[in-house]
Amino acid sequence: MQIEPQAFDRVLSSMCTEPHPDAREAAERFLATNPGDPGTYPTVTALEDEAIAMLGELTGLEEPAGYIASGGTEANIQAVRIARERAETRTPNVIIPESGHFSFRKAADVLGVDLRIVPTDETYRADLEAVRSCVDEQTALVVGVAGTTEYGRVDPIPELGEIAESVDAMFHVDAAWGGFVLPFTDDEWHFGHAAVDTMTIDPHKMGQAAVPAGGLLARSDDVLDVLAVDTPYLESTSQATLTGTRSGAGVASAVAAMETLWPEGYRNQYVRSQRNAEWLADALEKRGYDVVEPTLPLVAADVPQSTFDALRAKGWRISRTATGELRVVCMPHVTREMLASFIADLDRLEMRASVPVTSDD
Amino acid sequence: MQIEPQAFDRVLSSMCTEPHPDAREAAERFLATNPGDPGTYPTVTALEDEAIAMLGELTGLEEPAGYIASGGTEANIQAVRIARERAETRTPNVIIPESGHFSFRKAADVLGVDLRIVPTDETYRADLEAVRSCVDEQTALVVGVAGTTEYGRVDPIPELGEIAESVDAMFHVDAAWGGFVLPFTDDEWHFGHAAVDTMTIDPHKMGQAAVPAGGLLARSDDVLDVLAVDTPYLESTSQATLTGTRSGAGVASAVAAMETLWPEGYRNQYVRSQRNAEWLADALEKRGYDVVEPTLPLVAADVPQSTFDALRAKGWRISRTATGELRVVCMPHVTREMLASFIADLDRLEMRASVPVTSDD
Repeated sequence: MQIEPQAFDRVLSSMCTEPHPDAREAAERFLATNPGDPGTYPTVTALEDEAIAMLGELTGLEEPAGYIASGGTEANIQAVRIARERAETRTPNVIIPESGHFSFRKAADVLGVDLRIVPTDETYRADLEAVRSCVDEQTALVVGVAGTTEYGRVDPIPELGEIAESVDAMFHVDAAWGGFVLPFTDDEWHFGHAAVDTMTIDPHKMGQAAVPAGGLLARSDDVLDVLAVDTPYLESTSQATLTGTRSGAGVASAVAAMETLWPEGYRNQYVRSQRNAEWLADALEKRGYDVVEPTLPLVAADVPQSTFDALRAKGWRISRTATGELRVVCMPHVTREMLASFIADLDRLEMRASVPVTSDD
Repeated sequence: MQIEPQAFDRVLSSMCTEPHPDAREAAERFLATNPGDPGTYPTVTALEDEAIAMLGELTGLEEPAGYIASGGTEANIQAVRIARERAETRTPNVIIPESGHFSFRKAADVLGVDLRIVPTDETYRADLEAVRSCVDEQTALVVGVAGTTEYGRVDPIPELGEIAESVDAMFHVDAAWGGFVLPFTDDEWHFGHAAVDTMTIDPHKMGQAAVPAGGLLARSDDVLDVLAVDTPYLESTSQATLTGTRSGAGVASAVAAMETLWPEGYRNQYVRSQRNAEWLADALEKRGYDVVEPTLPLVAADVPQSTFDALRAKGWRISRTATGELRVVCMPHVTREMLASFIADLDRLEMRASVPVTSDD
């Protein structure tokens, strides 16, 4: 019997999505290539240059450097690694807001740096005063998040960049999820807005590419130099990636998605996703739940644990914030119909059929 | 214009290959899944358990633990990380033979451990006396290679395991490339042959799965415990992988390849590849080149740099050992016809058309 992957029609928890058809087609075509070996697979290496050029265009980066990583975790680890190598101290510390992704804890563990976690303010963004009082001469890196995993918030990026500069630290922006929707908002988040050194921006999240296609960008080529390891028996001279063999499918898929969707396709998707998030937030609020307003297409609400468990038992793929709130990510595959069906299930569970559910996406 | 990946018909340098048709089909089907998020994608998580069980069967591991990694580099980094975490010293060292893959240098750099590189003997295998005199109380890990990248040699695994045990160090076997052919040889290389703690064995190399499908195996589940990082907002409790989001395509593809090919398909492929390697070695020897005998399907020979460059200019994807020898990896896509055509090009270049080229695969 052939095992099938489950469909996406009940997935509300993932920051990945169904790849765009063009992205899927490119991934399938480049399945048997390895950008980790440019001497053997030059075509996919050329495609990777194109991917980085397009990511540069998205993020206001004039001479983009970087590579397509396995995902945001690798990109974040590499940003911390760059900062550690460039720091002039043997006891470097890294500052992240508590809204930072858990991959920074993994990075700190792997790389042996001291992770200093600072609180967020009442808007769920990095508390600038807390960051200011936390940095010191041993600070190698300050991290800002542009689209947090739990609430989709964007930290005050220009201000964080100034704080990093004030102590001669590097500045990294984690836009792994947010990077492909933020160009259509008023947020200040990218290389053009602040003195950003490195950035994580994942085509395989809101970029609608196939996994694995994370993105690590750097202000300039020389930022990546500290990562280079010599590569005998490859007809290239060095390798700056964390992994060795890499997926050509991810690279080709990222290029195909961006060629098709940037900018209008992404703009239209952002508008749809954001409207869906607002619809869901409204529906949840009407039912009496405390809702964290979706400033990007991500909704959190204080649905009780028993209700959460019952929704999961009905097949909904949902997840929670660290403080236990229901968390729904309005990815491209999440339609208004799905959300209406989700709310209908919630109503049945809570036996509150009084509020009508509409479906008009 | 649609960019196409180059064909495999001139690729002699890669340790990856065209995926088996069943592996390709499974990869395409599971392209939009993420085993890094088991709460959302439970089907691919079940497939990953199956992949590890099958890798256990291949490697004499009764209660297999591990996961499908992005590739051998990640698996090797993780093995070094496990050893560092378990070592009772703050200045751990790791012993590798000079034939070890460059990913161990990357691991040492990332993880801040002292890498001690010991020479190989006249058979290109780890020199046991050198290893014995190099280990000490700070040794966290001894590495043996089962199928070296340059010459396809298998280190004396049981003896290396004993040396590791004598200083209470962990023992890792890098069988990234060799693991899928060694079951059909007389070599002693796996968990059943020695006190191996961790192993790298990559389905996307000789296992004929699609990239990215590396393999990290561990003697038991508890070996992986030191890698675990808490995972808020995923409905699973912790994550032992180096990357976060991972490719379900790689996982599904590894299972499909092993279900189809283990053991008879792999045995037949090994016999074909080994015969091809011996044919090539013989052809090169007849032409007066010094050849390193292929004990596994990998041939090295001292072809001059100018000839090497001319062959690359003719489109052959070939690479060199650290000392400059031509290196040809007889992967499943490498046919006798390809090798005959390669030798014919070599003859034309060297203007030595006197030795007849036969093609009888």
